[in-house]
Amino acid sequence: MENPHHVVIVGGGFGGLHAAKTLHRAPVDVTLVDKRNFHLFQPLLYQVATGALSPANIASPLRSIFKRQKNVNVLLIDVDGFDVSNNKIIYAEGTLSYDSLIVAAGVGHSYFGNDSWERMAPGLKSIEEATEIRRRILLAFELAERENDPQLVKELLTFVIVGAGPTGVELAGAIKEIAMYTLANDFRTVSPSDAEVILIEGNDRVLPPFPEKLSEEAKQSLVRLGVKVMTETRVTNITRDDVTVLHAGNTSVIKTKTVLWAAGVGPTKLTRALAEATGAELDRAGRIVVEPDLSIKGHPNIYVVGDMCSFTHQSGKPLPGVAQVAVQQGRHAAKTVLRRLQGKETEPFHYRDLGNLATIGRGAAVADIGRLKLSGFVAWLIWLFVHLMHLVQFQNRMLVFMQWAWSYLTWNRAARLITGGRQRYEAKYEPPV
Amino acid sequence: MENPHHVVIVGGGFGGLHAAKTLHRAPVDVTLVDKRNFHLFQPLLYQVATGALSPANIASPLRSIFKRQKNVNVLLIDVDGFDVSNNKIIYAEGTLSYDSLIVAAGVGHSYFGNDSWERMAPGLKSIEEATEIRRRILLAFELAERENDPQLVKELLTFVIVGAGPTGVELAGAIKEIAMYTLANDFRTVSPSDAEVILIEGNDRVLPPFPEKLSEEAKQSLVRLGVKVMTETRVTNITRDDVTVLHAGNTSVIKTKTVLWAAGVGPTKLTRALAEATGAELDRAGRIVVEPDLSIKGHPNIYVVGDMCSFTHQSGKPLPGVAQVAVQQGRHAAKTVLRRLQGKETEPFHYRDLGNLATIGRGAAVADIGRLKLSGFVAWLIWLFVHLMHLVQFQNRMLVFMQWAWSYLTWNRAARLITGGRQRYEAKYEPPV
Repeated sequence: MENPHHVVIVGGGFGGLHAAKTLHRAPVDVTLVDKRNFHLFQPLLYQVATGALSPANIASPLRSIFKRQKNVNVLLIDVDGFDVSNNKIIYAEGTLSYDSLIVAAGVGHSYFGNDSWERMAPGLKSIEEATEIRRRILLAFELAERENDPQLVKELLTFVIVGAGPTGVELAGAIKEIAMYTLANDFRTVSPSDAEVILIEGNDRVLPPFPEKLSEEAKQSLVRLGVKVMTETRVTNITRDDVTVLHAGNTSVIKTKTVLWAAGVGPTKLTRALAEATGAELDRAGRIVVEPDLSIKGHPNIYVVGDMCSFTHQSGKPLPGVAQVAVQQGRHAAKTVLRRLQGKETEPFHYRDLGNLATIGRGAAVADIGRLKLSGFVAWLIWLFVHLMHLVQFQNRMLVFMQWAWSYLTWNRAARLITGGRQRYEAKYEPPV
Repeated sequence: MENPHHVVIVGGGFGGLHAAKTLHRAPVDVTLVDKRNFHLFQPLLYQVATGALSPANIASPLRSIFKRQKNVNVLLIDVDGFDVSNNKIIYAEGTLSYDSLIVAAGVGHSYFGNDSWERMAPGLKSIEEATEIRRRILLAFELAERENDPQLVKELLTFVIVGAGPTGVELAGAIKEIAMYTLANDFRTVSPSDAEVILIEGNDRVLPPFPEKLSEEAKQSLVRLGVKVMTETRVTNITRDDVTVLHAGNTSVIKTKTVLWAAGVGPTKLTRALAEATGAELDRAGRIVVEPDLSIKGHPNIYVVGDMCSFTHQSGKPLPGVAQVAVQQGRHAAKTVLRRLQGKETEPFHYRDLGNLATIGRGAAVADIGRLKLSGFVAWLIWLFVHLMHLVQFQNRMLVFMQWAWSYLTWNRAARLITGGRQRYEAKYEPPV
């Protein structure tokens, strides 16, 4: 410790990473703690789940990122709670004192009160969940190849994705593409093009945050690919063998062995611990309500940024849980720490919307960038470029680019591994580790 | 099924893969079953365990390999046993009939009767074990960075590898290199170069299958790198906190938190099941003793190849468990199946030794190829070239080459992820999944 002021940042995602980088050359010591040793580029996690990329391609060791920023100390710590009256974070083996605290620890999944669904329908937030989803998708095809009962083959080749935000849309498109092209010649008895991919959304359109016109074009792309899109449809039950849905007052049952959850986010235990320690309010989605400068009310030295944060001061409704919000909030929180150190007034956070992108499959995407509303191949090229450029390390950029180019030319996917757990029928339903 | 003769191959490693390939254009139907959906290039598994490569870089989907060989049907099956009187293999959900059977299912670890050591000292045979070993090595450094007690730091930075065959030597060299170079600037409080790597071997030299001169040169390379080599030393106990060893009648205790097992192989449950079903004899290492044509005595239509097989007819002692033996035996078994179909006499297997290679670290290796006995940089280049060329798929070759080139230039390792299990202190000792 060389500086008198110690900033602790919890979480090495987009928010925490950019907070720490903003404190480059500042007269503060920074400790970045995360329960993982890497920064994960979540926007490409669905590509790990669908066998296009390896986990390491979208993960960068935090130590490696901050190798040269000497005022940052990275520690692998799984934070349990906060002792705000003594300015300490608490973990299993000890505590760590801070002068300023920036919490950027992300969100978990929400099953809308049906936590038992998680075993049947994993969500996509971590590397482990991505490889578990990959295992389930690939295993369903393998089990269908081995199966003689045509009804069971049909159920194994039915994939249900709940939630048509960017993650749901991207997963649905990728699974249909795997079935149609990647696996097409690999199987002998089943025809992978028989695979049915069903995308379920409670709202009246896919990609609700996008302009209506782009939602419609995304839907058309999905339909052309062969994805069955069910909007205004709610899931009322999930079992090992089926999903029950409600649409326009009618209940129906979809027989399926693979359900993926891309529908809702909710608070983690860390969000609850922080709310309890500070008396902060949670919004309906379980995010911590912050002041205009991103601090928690009554705790001017504690900031919450990214997916964990409910910031409503700009438009009346909370900002969306996307990477750009986290990046800008991380930077703002870091600057606010420095303003306070210099005895200045803090400034309110102001989000500058740089646009939204989502991809539907090979050669298809939608882009909503200011006045530019695009769909199709050009939007897809923009999507590729933006995602490639935002990968943190040059080596990852290079490896991802090569694998994308290769997949584009050969329709192959490099990372089609079934790992973790036994390859038995019942093992498909074991929960992720 | 188009052909009257059905060959079932159990295992998609080197032996099974080359057996199936040899049956290309033969008038037989082939079913290749494996509990995995990929062929694993085991000689590079230690590079996954030490964060240099991603699992998918050394794994190729079996379906993808046999896409164009239309007489091969790949099925994901975890075989439980054999019903040899009815010519069937048995698995949890059914059976599969064969006319000829080639079993190439590999070996497991042997802890010399101390199975409880496995939790403390994982071996290196599968992707899951490789990522578990990677987790333990990287976690030890992370925990040391967080730790204040100098004694505990020392124990965390002590790595013990049991067994100085190629895998043990390669692991020891790679761990020392990670500590010395890759992590050197990444840590703030501990100095990774303080890491002590201890390689324990029961024989009187490292790399026992190599000529003595090369063993000595390999040892010198290890010592130059800073590895402590203990030969003629036997492990008598392993706990969570230490390893007890016996050398020249003296017992000593090494305090360590990380022990890796590269010492012994033993039979899997499948080996035992096959021996029981056929009445075959097992050798001391738990391998199935075969006839000169690789069939099991009294079962001329059942062949055992690769690590599972004890073939002593050539030199009086069993052939070593290396890839080259498995490849040649797989080819021979397939040809023998065809000879019998044509009503010809079977021919004895004859192993053609193409040499041995082992690498000790950056720029150092030993090569024993016929009369050519090399060590140092040239041997290392041969090692690189041979391993790159033997990777099954072009894309893997390209990605591995790029990552090696990148690592060579930057000393970085691309796949330094701690995944699976929680990042808690005690979690380090949880057994692999």
